Amino acid sequence: MSEMTLRAGKLDAADELAGLRDRFVLDDTVYLDGNSLGALPANVPDRVADVVRRQWGRLRIRSWEESGWWTAPERIGDRIAPLVGAAPGQIVVGDSTSVNVFKALVAAVRMARETDRAAGGTADGGGTAGGGGTAGGGGTAGGGGARDEILVDATTFPTDGYIAQSAARMTGCALRPVVPAEVPAALSARTAAVLLNHVDYRTGRLHDLPSLTAAVHAAGAYAVWDLCHSAGALPVGLDEHGVGLAVGCTYKYLNGGPGSPAYLYVRRDLQDRFDSPLPGWNSHAEPFGMRPEYESAAGALRGRVGTPDILSMLALDAALDVWDGVPIEAVRAKSLALADFFLECVAQYVPPGRVESLTPVAHEERGSQVALRCADAGKVMKRLIERGVVGDFRHPDVLRFGFTPLYVGFADVERAARVLGEVTGEVLA
Amino acid sequence: MSEMTLRAGKLDAADELAGLRDRFVLDDTVYLDGNSLGALPANVPDRVADVVRRQWGRLRIRSWEESGWWTAPERIGDRIAPLVGAAPGQIVVGDSTSVNVFKALVAAVRMARETDRAAGGTADGGGTAGGGGTAGGGGTAGGGGARDEILVDATTFPTDGYIAQSAARMTGCALRPVVPAEVPAALSARTAAVLLNHVDYRTGRLHDLPSLTAAVHAAGAYAVWDLCHSAGALPVGLDEHGVGLAVGCTYKYLNGGPGSPAYLYVRRDLQDRFDSPLPGWNSHAEPFGMRPEYESAAGALRGRVGTPDILSMLALDAALDVWDGVPIEAVRAKSLALADFFLECVAQYVPPGRVESLTPVAHEERGSQVALRCADAGKVMKRLIERGVVGDFRHPDVLRFGFTPLYVGFADVERAARVLGEVTGEVLA
Repeated sequence: MSEMTLRAGKLDAADELAGLRDRFVLDDTVYLDGNSLGALPANVPDRVADVVRRQWGRLRIRSWEESGWWTAPERIGDRIAPLVGAAPGQIVVGDSTSVNVFKALVAAVRMARETDRAAGGTADGGGTAGGGGTAGGGGTAGGGGARDEILVDATTFPTDGYIAQSAARMTGCALRPVVPAEVPAALSARTAAVLLNHVDYRTGRLHDLPSLTAAVHAAGAYAVWDLCHSAGALPVGLDEHGVGLAVGCTYKYLNGGPGSPAYLYVRRDLQDRFDSPLPGWNSHAEPFGMRPEYESAAGALRGRVGTPDILSMLALDAALDVWDGVPIEAVRAKSLALADFFLECVAQYVPPGRVESLTPVAHEERGSQVALRCADAGKVMKRLIERGVVGDFRHPDVLRFGFTPLYVGFADVERAARVLGEVTGEVLA
Repeated sequence: MSEMTLRAGKLDAADELAGLRDRFVLDDTVYLDGNSLGALPANVPDRVADVVRRQWGRLRIRSWEESGWWTAPERIGDRIAPLVGAAPGQIVVGDSTSVNVFKALVAAVRMARETDRAAGGTADGGGTAGGGGTAGGGGTAGGGGARDEILVDATTFPTDGYIAQSAARMTGCALRPVVPAEVPAALSARTAAVLLNHVDYRTGRLHDLPSLTAAVHAAGAYAVWDLCHSAGALPVGLDEHGVGLAVGCTYKYLNGGPGSPAYLYVRRDLQDRFDSPLPGWNSHAEPFGMRPEYESAAGALRGRVGTPDILSMLALDAALDVWDGVPIEAVRAKSLALADFFLECVAQYVPPGRVESLTPVAHEERGSQVALRCADAGKVMKRLIERGVVGDFRHPDVLRFGFTPLYVGFADVERAARVLGEVTGEVLA
């Protein structure tokens, strides 16, 4: 038995979270792709079966009330809240991440302009609705001026950039891609909103949420944080750091299942000013009043839109049970230890020069994944998967390995690194 | 045995669709609320269990390819297509109806303006992006002018009106509510888009899709049809009638389950011009290229946005199996016969003056429901449900009964009318 194998065994034996693996359906694969699709929590299948057979099949329409379907978006939001450091009443679940980015960014631009207006500033310049004089509220037309720029993380997962482009276009803003570290210098009185990733999807770099949020707010703008690659992997501290708006998916570290609904966080004191571009009937103050005039509900449920996708949403609800009694700080500690140990094993097993880590070494700059640049990365990942080590390949040359501390152990990462050493030896020999 | 009971028995015996009831999970309730939430198709529970246990639980991330998850939105769209008279390649499934109304309406406004521009017209007047001169494409700013008005069905299900208001605001249009019959007279060179319901959710009135579509197109505008209360209940004929854009939900007559994803139809020759306000990465020409620049995919999948909610979507996929070999024309014939017979039974059983039908008598003006105005309608519906007849109550005074010919029979509607007679006798005595 090698030294690394022995160490892995000791680390697993000392791991207080090791028992959580039993809460998932797993096999002998080393699954390091939970940062793309989380593994199946063991209690989900029976719960989904109950939703389908009893709630839908037997109670049918009555389940909207009797099974709590109608209030699921905010109820499940409140279950996600502690994982991202939010008090209850600030998160609703529903729609995709892309749709929530659109809601949050447009609302951020509107809030920034409204803040200026309320302060007697020059906010009208940006203009939301063009020439049509009778358009329904929200900004008057005019020439260029204050709050007409959206900054977007230049290294973002592309959908955020595409949606930001549309939000900019539809609010009369310009879109400016900036790498997160340069955001403070790029802020100005023109900045309306800034869309940032907490953890970079490709490199695994963790951005400095507290200081970037403070800088954006100091400039009179609003930051929208994309938590897809941080929620469930590390403490986010939304309330603590005064974040105004955030979105995230639930199918990665939250294990909600393929395409499970995303969530939207709106800080409590901003909720009255959250002016959604998608004011569907589910966000109405009196949704069953069937009133022709729109009147926003109070609270986080202003972020709701249409009828929630109940099967996907209640699968997520069940999946969140795996977090019972699990402190996110312990998850973070194990995540860092797993990644550190993985990098040690890689240094041990992979011949020099074959891979290069793109992920920062410093803990405070790292999420819960390791990205390795590697020649022939697509082929290498294919071989890894054939040999039971599942990560993913990101175009053009990146191997991504995600560490999900609820169900990945130290022996898993030792094996992953060992097989990586063998495969790179074969493929790149 | 009464005369109506005897007739019901004969009608059921002669009903060629009667055997389809076995494709659903039902009990001895008379379920006349399938126009709100369709009953559970019998094959759905096992299929969903397979998606959860095997596709997610065992194949995990591999299912995006191996289980066809990635292409599900367009594949399932092609299964809905024949039910609404569309050739393949024009429908994608995903998001809620509200979100799809937003996509379709904004795209409609943009297309109408672009058509004018291409013809050298005066289209720039409406303006899509306000003052920000560097905004990303799509229209220049300017004063009031051509194509700056959206018409919306004044009797619409409210969410369509709320979303239309937002689409108008964000494209620099005014929103004008008009009852469908008055749409032709309200059209002008200012009209960019018209949002119409095929069947009114409250009264069950069927609007004249062919002639209204033709009138809207003749005015140089685009109609967006909401098919929520018609798809799966009657022939829609999207291709035949030259409809450009349509949306619909799948949890009513299509039995997809609570909050199952909606769909978007974009006529083939308009797809290259479909300019979505929600250009998520799933609509990119090369979604895994992770390119910072957005480039639209070709075809209907331009209407996709973010990661599809696979559990809800594949439940719908299974649910669509119940349509195998079922001609929509036969469904329509039975739907009309059921409603006619129901109204006859109501006339027989309900004391005069206690209910009044809001649903047109003429077949060509009727969808697949009957709406009865009734004093104390909320209380009456509660009693009906207690006695095993499930319809729904629409504020303030409407009893709604939906006829879903795949699983409702003539004995069901006879019983419903009989119990209604008894209940109105008790409640309103």
